[in-house]
Amino acid sequence: MTVELKNPPAETLATDCRAMAERAKAASEVLVSCSTAAKNKWLLAAAAAIEAHAPELLAANARDVEAAPGFGLNAAAVDRLKLTPTRIKSAADGLRQVAALPDPVGEVREGGLRPNGLQVLKVGVPIGVVFFIYESRPNVTADAAALCVKSGNAVILRGGKEAIHSNTALHRILADSLDQCGLPADAVQLVTSLDRAAVGHFLRMPQLIDLAIPRGGKGLIERVVSEAMMPVMKHYDGNCHVYVDAAADLDMAERIVINAKCARPGVCNATESLLVHAAIADVFLPKIGAALTARGVEIRGCEETRKRLPAAKLATEADHRAEFLDLIISVKVVETLDVAVSHINEYGSKHTDAIITRDLAASRRFTQRVDSAAVIVNASTRFNDGFELGLGAEIGISTDKFHARGPCGLRELTTYKYVVTGDGQVRE
Amino acid sequence: MTVELKNPPAETLATDCRAMAERAKAASEVLVSCSTAAKNKWLLAAAAAIEAHAPELLAANARDVEAAPGFGLNAAAVDRLKLTPTRIKSAADGLRQVAALPDPVGEVREGGLRPNGLQVLKVGVPIGVVFFIYESRPNVTADAAALCVKSGNAVILRGGKEAIHSNTALHRILADSLDQCGLPADAVQLVTSLDRAAVGHFLRMPQLIDLAIPRGGKGLIERVVSEAMMPVMKHYDGNCHVYVDAAADLDMAERIVINAKCARPGVCNATESLLVHAAIADVFLPKIGAALTARGVEIRGCEETRKRLPAAKLATEADHRAEFLDLIISVKVVETLDVAVSHINEYGSKHTDAIITRDLAASRRFTQRVDSAAVIVNASTRFNDGFELGLGAEIGISTDKFHARGPCGLRELTTYKYVVTGDGQVRE
Repeated sequence: MTVELKNPPAETLATDCRAMAERAKAASEVLVSCSTAAKNKWLLAAAAAIEAHAPELLAANARDVEAAPGFGLNAAAVDRLKLTPTRIKSAADGLRQVAALPDPVGEVREGGLRPNGLQVLKVGVPIGVVFFIYESRPNVTADAAALCVKSGNAVILRGGKEAIHSNTALHRILADSLDQCGLPADAVQLVTSLDRAAVGHFLRMPQLIDLAIPRGGKGLIERVVSEAMMPVMKHYDGNCHVYVDAAADLDMAERIVINAKCARPGVCNATESLLVHAAIADVFLPKIGAALTARGVEIRGCEETRKRLPAAKLATEADHRAEFLDLIISVKVVETLDVAVSHINEYGSKHTDAIITRDLAASRRFTQRVDSAAVIVNASTRFNDGFELGLGAEIGISTDKFHARGPCGLRELTTYKYVVTGDGQVRE
Repeated sequence: MTVELKNPPAETLATDCRAMAERAKAASEVLVSCSTAAKNKWLLAAAAAIEAHAPELLAANARDVEAAPGFGLNAAAVDRLKLTPTRIKSAADGLRQVAALPDPVGEVREGGLRPNGLQVLKVGVPIGVVFFIYESRPNVTADAAALCVKSGNAVILRGGKEAIHSNTALHRILADSLDQCGLPADAVQLVTSLDRAAVGHFLRMPQLIDLAIPRGGKGLIERVVSEAMMPVMKHYDGNCHVYVDAAADLDMAERIVINAKCARPGVCNATESLLVHAAIADVFLPKIGAALTARGVEIRGCEETRKRLPAAKLATEADHRAEFLDLIISVKVVETLDVAVSHINEYGSKHTDAIITRDLAASRRFTQRVDSAAVIVNASTRFNDGFELGLGAEIGISTDKFHARGPCGLRELTTYKYVVTGDGQVRE
């Protein structure tokens, strides 16, 4: 299969984008009343089809991998782009996992009878049409399609140009299986135009598209936020903190800091900043300093830190704000829990922040005052994740406060309506 | 008390707005951990203070009423602006009602243990700082302050210039009582500059202001949506429909249509459009036509309607889309329930739409497919209201799908965080 990499002229592009959005809207009106059984049937059929078409997917992906150096991709990016039989199996299994999750559509979230006999139900319903813009990993194509359709939404996918052959092959399998299962094929559409202007066209159609979800670098997200005329579900930085309290179990603190910093330094819930209460700094800093250094972590500390760890670099303001995504950690000694809370609220990114303490009052104060999507007591920051928190697969982690905070799974891809049933009530 | 109506120079205005937003942010950081008891104590004290200061409020309001013709207010607008001893009592009672509502902050919305022993709680928390922009009714000042503070948010109020003296007097009472109750007075601030540029300054501070809520005409809302860099909770039109199904109880249908259209035609949940199934049009249209006409309602119908009601005007496309807020109704005969649903989703405003039917399958199909904040079976559209649905007082009715839909009360002024507690868990 060959993908036409030439772009249509500007006027055709605008018309094409609008037609695509209109088809998505029409598909969403069908999806809204599709049964959970029908959606699950598709997810399982699509999983089987992905596995059955593995040779085609590998061939399409090989074309992307071949072209990758031309797009300036480095070795790590090429690795993320690459499909293997294992990764194809994992994409298929991802669809099966989504099939196993509860359907948030139709879920009665609250309900009861009013004094006048009206029954009021607050019922989960799809948001409508989602525009999903993402970067090179092709597995994300299958994940996003699965999550959107299971939650009753039509989705328009706009993947990276680097993955265009892989995404086109995957999309064809997903759309064919939708059709074979009696669901609208337009429930999952792929933007094949590589013109960046296409993104702008979709972002300016709030009547047809209900939600934009950008997943990628900060530049992409900022562009989407500034252009979008519909709500945007987004994820900025993850500058996660661990605060080791005066009443911490220092062995536990060490275990958690090492896990949170070193297990997977490149992910958003990895710890970037360590705050240490002054009362235990003399004992804890040499201990954690040795453990971090042994694992190749570079320490950038405040003056008080450097009194205990003379080998540490001096941390700048920027270090305290940084999401390193690397084996680097900023360290600061704080005089009180309240200073730690203020520092986190000022320098953090409202993502995930942990306290290590045995003191119940300290844990209550910290969890109440730290304004982050997840506040963690005596565990690793790495637990802020859809699977770990029990939501199942996620479309992203929101750093916003509005609508959804933290991991966004199926339920966060829905909204609600009030369904009110009476027997002739009128209002005086 | 005199209010300085001159505006500060532009550079001072920007600095003043920023300082005000910073004070609001600082106040919100205190409010986040205020007890429900402390917030309720303030609400009751403020209610008493409003009643005790009635003479001052009436004097300040008299100045606004006197100046009103100069702002071009018509008689109805002057009436809305006017405070009376009864309206002052009602503002005070509004605060008492908010005190009686449950506090959404700290509410555990979901929770449980994960297989690894981590306890995961999803806990209600304030959004932070709310910027509330509204038009002339001074009672709204007290309502908005009460709802925001009870939900743990600081609020910056920007009322209409027509109510500046009333709002200033009310704000002083609210702020003094905050101070007397040991809460930060900056939790409720009033923008006294009449410069429209002030609104723009606040809308461009997403780091300090978490949510904008405009309440007023469409022009105001559109301006806020286009300028705001933070989420906006908003309410556009209410073009509410009643669909009278083939299987309707026609007496019930008449009672509901008359209530929904005539009881208070100027409110957003009043019915503006009537859809009648063709099978009962010959019987129902003459019946409802006579009842509406007897109450002075102007009927604008489709051709099929006019066959049964020759006195009706011919409805235009615009009539079917209109929020009349007046004794006018558009009427259309539909061949099937599905045509009614499509018409509502196409011409309606996703606010409130009702079906009158005895047929269970029809009610299920209608409630599932109509994409509106409230879908009502066998009752008046007028029930889409915070009090009637059991939420208590509301800050507005959202026509958005994101975050909150329909009436927005205390809980809709909050978001949530995950609070995760363990005993040393790390992630493999």
